Amino acid sequence: MSSCWGNNIKISVFGQSHSPAIGVVIDGLPAGFHIDMENLDAFMQRRAPGQSGLTTPRKEADTVEFISGIINGKTCGAPLCAMIKNTNVRPGDYSEISDTPRPGHADFTAQAKFHGFQDLSGGGHFSGRLTAPLCVAGGICLQILDFKGIHIGAHIERIADVSDQRFDPAFVSAIDLQKLSYEPLTVIDPAIGEAMAERIKKAGEDGDSVGGVIECAVIGLPEGIGDPMFDGMENRIASAAFAIPGIKGIEFGNGFDCASMRGSENNDSFITDGDKIITKTNNHGGILGGITSGMPLIFRVAVKPTPSISITQKTVSFSDNKETDLNIHGRHDPCIVPRAVPCVEAIAALTVYDAWLSSKNSCI
Amino acid sequence: MSSCWGNNIKISVFGQSHSPAIGVVIDGLPAGFHIDMENLDAFMQRRAPGQSGLTTPRKEADTVEFISGIINGKTCGAPLCAMIKNTNVRPGDYSEISDTPRPGHADFTAQAKFHGFQDLSGGGHFSGRLTAPLCVAGGICLQILDFKGIHIGAHIERIADVSDQRFDPAFVSAIDLQKLSYEPLTVIDPAIGEAMAERIKKAGEDGDSVGGVIECAVIGLPEGIGDPMFDGMENRIASAAFAIPGIKGIEFGNGFDCASMRGSENNDSFITDGDKIITKTNNHGGILGGITSGMPLIFRVAVKPTPSISITQKTVSFSDNKETDLNIHGRHDPCIVPRAVPCVEAIAALTVYDAWLSSKNSCI
Amino acid sequence: MSSCWGNNIKISVFGQSHSPAIGVVIDGLPAGFHIDMENLDAFMQRRAPGQSGLTTPRKEADTVEFISGIINGKTCGAPLCAMIKNTNVRPGDYSEISDTPRPGHADFTAQAKFHGFQDLSGGGHFSGRLTAPLCVAGGICLQILDFKGIHIGAHIERIADVSDQRFDPAFVSAIDLQKLSYEPLTVIDPAIGEAMAERIKKAGEDGDSVGGVIECAVIGLPEGIGDPMFDGMENRIASAAFAIPGIKGIEFGNGFDCASMRGSENNDSFITDGDKIITKTNNHGGILGGITSGMPLIFRVAVKPTPSISITQKTVSFSDNKETDLNIHGRHDPCIVPRAVPCVEAIAALTVYDAWLSSKNSCI
Amino acid sequence: MSSCWGNNIKISVFGQSHSPAIGVVIDGLPAGFHIDMENLDAFMQRRAPGQSGLTTPRKEADTVEFISGIINGKTCGAPLCAMIKNTNVRPGDYSEISDTPRPGHADFTAQAKFHGFQDLSGGGHFSGRLTAPLCVAGGICLQILDFKGIHIGAHIERIADVSDQRFDPAFVSAIDLQKLSYEPLTVIDPAIGEAMAERIKKAGEDGDSVGGVIECAVIGLPEGIGDPMFDGMENRIASAAFAIPGIKGIEFGNGFDCASMRGSENNDSFITDGDKIITKTNNHGGILGGITSGMPLIFRVAVKPTPSISITQKTVSFSDNKETDLNIHGRHDPCIVPRAVPCVEAIAALTVYDAWLSSKNSCI
Repeated sequence: MSSCWGNNIKISVFGQSHSPAIGVVIDGLPAGFHIDMENLDAFMQRRAPGQSGLTTPRKEADTVEFISGIINGKTCGAPLCAMIKNTNVRPGDYSEISDTPRPGHADFTAQAKFHGFQDLSGGGHFSGRLTAPLCVAGGICLQILDFKGIHIGAHIERIADVSDQRFDPAFVSAIDLQKLSYEPLTVIDPAIGEAMAERIKKAGEDGDSVGGVIECAVIGLPEGIGDPMFDGMENRIASAAFAIPGIKGIEFGNGFDCASMRGSENNDSFITDGDKIITKTNNHGGILGGITSGMPLIFRVAVKPTPSISITQKTVSFSDNKETDLNIHGRHDPCIVPRAVPCVEAIAALTVYDAWLSSKNSCI
Repeated sequence: MSSCWGNNIKISVFGQSHSPAIGVVIDGLPAGFHIDMENLDAFMQRRAPGQSGLTTPRKEADTVEFISGIINGKTCGAPLCAMIKNTNVRPGDYSEISDTPRPGHADFTAQAKFHGFQDLSGGGHFSGRLTAPLCVAGGICLQILDFKGIHIGAHIERIADVSDQRFDPAFVSAIDLQKLSYEPLTVIDPAIGEAMAERIKKAGEDGDSVGGVIECAVIGLPEGIGDPMFDGMENRIASAAFAIPGIKGIEFGNGFDCASMRGSENNDSFITDGDKIITKTNNHGGILGGITSGMPLIFRVAVKPTPSISITQKTVSFSDNKETDLNIHGRHDPCIVPRAVPCVEAIAALTVYDAWLSSKNSCI
Repeated sequence: MSSCWGNNIKISVFGQSHSPAIGVVIDGLPAGFHIDMENLDAFMQRRAPGQSGLTTPRKEADTVEFISGIINGKTCGAPLCAMIKNTNVRPGDYSEISDTPRPGHADFTAQAKFHGFQDLSGGGHFSGRLTAPLCVAGGICLQILDFKGIHIGAHIERIADVSDQRFDPAFVSAIDLQKLSYEPLTVIDPAIGEAMAERIKKAGEDGDSVGGVIECAVIGLPEGIGDPMFDGMENRIASAAFAIPGIKGIEFGNGFDCASMRGSENNDSFITDGDKIITKTNNHGGILGGITSGMPLIFRVAVKPTPSISITQKTVSFSDNKETDLNIHGRHDPCIVPRAVPCVEAIAALTVYDAWLSSKNSCI
Repeated sequence: MSSCWGNNIKISVFGQSHSPAIGVVIDGLPAGFHIDMENLDAFMQRRAPGQSGLTTPRKEADTVEFISGIINGKTCGAPLCAMIKNTNVRPGDYSEISDTPRPGHADFTAQAKFHGFQDLSGGGHFSGRLTAPLCVAGGICLQILDFKGIHIGAHIERIADVSDQRFDPAFVSAIDLQKLSYEPLTVIDPAIGEAMAERIKKAGEDGDSVGGVIECAVIGLPEGIGDPMFDGMENRIASAAFAIPGIKGIEFGNGFDCASMRGSENNDSFITDGDKIITKTNNHGGILGGITSGMPLIFRVAVKPTPSISITQKTVSFSDNKETDLNIHGRHDPCIVPRAVPCVEAIAALTVYDAWLSSKNSCI
């Protein structure tokens, strides 16, 4: 099912860019958890447009309305439905798309699948706006995980040619996540954040866009979470991560770099750390055989440059099958990477919490 | 469920490295398809050990026995169970593992999850041997897809520092897949294959191992297959691909490279090709918004170096929590990439066929 | 997942009796279907309270608001979210329940499961009110099935000791469904409907309630829909039917009566009907081996008497573990059978349509 | 998926009546459970043919072979595959079916679905023989539940017009299940068992068959197991029970009888039992709102008379669309009820254990 996901908790995401509202139903949340609404709102604001002058001027309050599933501030065991009204709806902006599919967008493939019945306005259900309900679901799971001592944080590892440091894979701690700098962009090294912001601004001024890479770490995850084969942590995380529009790759631990390495370099030796067994290095990114090792779980996703650019592009008219120029009006994020950071954290929280819930039944 | 996968066809993989047999149940195969057993056997042989002196000397005939689901050579609509007997079983080789987890293997995490009840011999259910039933299921899907004009092929794109050409993303054709060279390794450029084989042999002689990258192309896939959000082609393929042991990353189209690009470079212009609309370039790898565009679907996976090496490694004894040296006896593949190539094709076939079956219900 | 259901279409039901709203997300509806809103509203009114003076005086307009998934009156392929505001919310009526569980209700078991975190007002997520979103989802499927020539109708087969005729299992037709009498109750024989209404009124006057049986027929279903074993039509229908509160039994064809019969009586002979093969009788209720035979699909469900009665009952106080008298205030339906009739049709439509969507992939 | 079932444990059943073997893969069994093979074999023998001269003379040793998932007699966390060889295969017996569908069997509907590609021999995948792997899976779950103090037993409540006593719904205990009489049939009252056996023999002598009802009780189930709406205990049990061929109805607690009752009779008062709260009566059959109440869980299923009878029947020839007489050769069970008793216990065990595994995540 395209917009449903999960084994123990199950989310069902709904809405289009310009429908009356967007939202999510979360089935399977345990009863009795107090959701910190201020914390959730702060998390949602990290995804919201309008930050640092780097993102789209579409203004959305993104106020989360809880329709069901909460009594006296706590989950009640019934499915939780959260809704966000679409207030800044301008369907008129998008009429041209119906005949001339935008390069890099889903206009062409949606037409191939739904034969003209799809919602065209603002990308419809394919819009990046649908990551807002994902962040509601993920934001709640982040709080539950925090409560259990499992902490998740992501930062921009790269924008175009500007790279932040990576998390130190074997030693990154919850404190390191607390130390992340959020202004103007979420990075480890604030100076690098400034340089990245410059790249984004420049691309925007050129009517163009840029892509990047986001790195995410999960700290405090006990060993033994996840399953062999199709329900490994990699499978679970990847199955959800590609729901974020624009993600074109994912890697765990040292990822694609391991392809160039020898086993003697890539294998992480086991060592003792008091009573615990840990690994000396963490090329494996906290996952072996699909199951957590207790080391930080680390993954990175590649985000493509925003397909909406104001530079004239080539496309084809559906109606007369002729090649034509396309000029996209309105303004869009010159880079979606900054707003995708909390989305990646949300995905990590959803998948980790779902796997954690499964883990109680491994032994008799 | 760890070893079950699929929406329309559903596979359930069973067996351990040294259990009496390994196998797979495939539920949901349409009735009436004639399985070409010679073709399937040839496909299985590409995964089998013993090729070109580059792989493990464990000899397994890997004869596929069909227990159910086939009548007169054709699928009958009932679940198909295929089994491969484990003939070359030597449980004694692995006794040491129970106390000293091998770096890079699942020994440590399996212990964390199953508390000593797991099957240790040869990696148990975590063994690469379990990709054989995956290849049976995928091999059948490959035949069905071929019958429908959809063709899948993969090659080794890189071993250590030696790189093959990539598929030409916009122009790779079924004929190009036919032209792949299989000896000594599956590559586009046979000279490169020789160089890769050298790297593998050298690593083996050093008691070490090497990793690599595999690239896969799906040709002839109609536009409009796949779904938004969680059931996009990327999500589906990734959710299955990480079931192949040793895969640590996956990317679609230009993947991680898109992070460095501007939108104006990365967007693929739509152009006409007779009556059809295609894209001029194929950075998107045949997928936009999770749905196929009709262009070749292209993805790459990173494979880590075989964790089993004969060089002495460091580990910790479970029983006394002391660090100790580990020497792995027996011989293993110095590189699992060559045998992983058909596994990647199998995964692609399973996911593409499963998505194709869903696509009939997109419109009223 | 407790409130999610379906294979090809997937519904996620949310809301509690006194939450701001109740609703449903339907994922997987084909694009391009025009929903007849008047028809849907008329269907919803059959479930709504306030009919014929026989049901609860709680007034709810039950206006269905479509949040997503519809463009220009037609489904657009994106998940459809439908919401019904709870306008007549009176949480105060239910405070007593928290300490003294009502016999026949879910108060006691909800407490056992959710330990006091559950929503108590009006039964929370266990309320019969949650059948309203079920009817929205089912009502849409009813329209799609009608469009395909598959027609569904149910009637009250029994209230207490008053029995309506049954559908003639081998000959019931779409016209017979059109001829059902809706006033005062949905029956084949209107005189019987009057007698049933008397039984209900009398029970209400006594501060008591009555149960009944509902019979449902699906006409025009092609042969070959449904699957063996766990996805037979009986399994599918039953898996959804018990979501309607108060249903305690289901039977297909001649159901429990077949237990007293001999094979020679119970087997339905095959005969010709022009070019078609049909059965002479229809004890099998249109299902053999889980798969439709092309004969009318017929099933019946048993509905218990409304547990809310004004007669004093015995219960136990959670707080002091003492037995105590319970008087339930407010007024409730003395019989939920009349309002359950459209719910049973909704369930039949959901399950039949979901199975129909699967049936395209049976053969190569 | 037709032959897959389950949420936490997932079974995939394979095989046809005359395929080389039949079997089941069980994914999700916790590691570390010792399976008592003698106990399992004894359980399997209760389903096996050849008992008391009342069943088919087809002889099958029904020896269960474990292919995977067990190490040193204990589950190891990997999927368990169990296989039973079909030794007494006589495909020749069934050639006639291909053209003349047997009344009451799935021959006609299988043809409609699979268009001649289905396995016809002995009913193929539709055969009652497929309940053997169900009993393997259920038999293992029965042992696990026994270990947890949850006990399951079923008896024949009725054959034709002969009725056994029912379990006393509020007081049936594990000891009552121990006291069940197994010879000649599984009943509470052995004298009644003799009378039932007479009915079966008489039907067989007449070349005919008889149906019946089976009642099942689950004792010791804690309160709070199961979920609202679609994952209620009734939904779960019914979704699996109809996988047993010939079952046409299911009812929980007092089932269809509740339709004739008033709320004041049907509601079960809560009373104290020491520190526990129980109900005085048990019309609700241990389930309220889909969730267990801690009272015995009780359900009954209706089983139709064996469709295979030697009396001449009417059918239609597929090849010339002409009505014709059908004589079924070979001998079959004149009543499948006796052998269905352990199958019902197996289904109960599977569903109850699967629900029990879910129940750990209800609260934070």
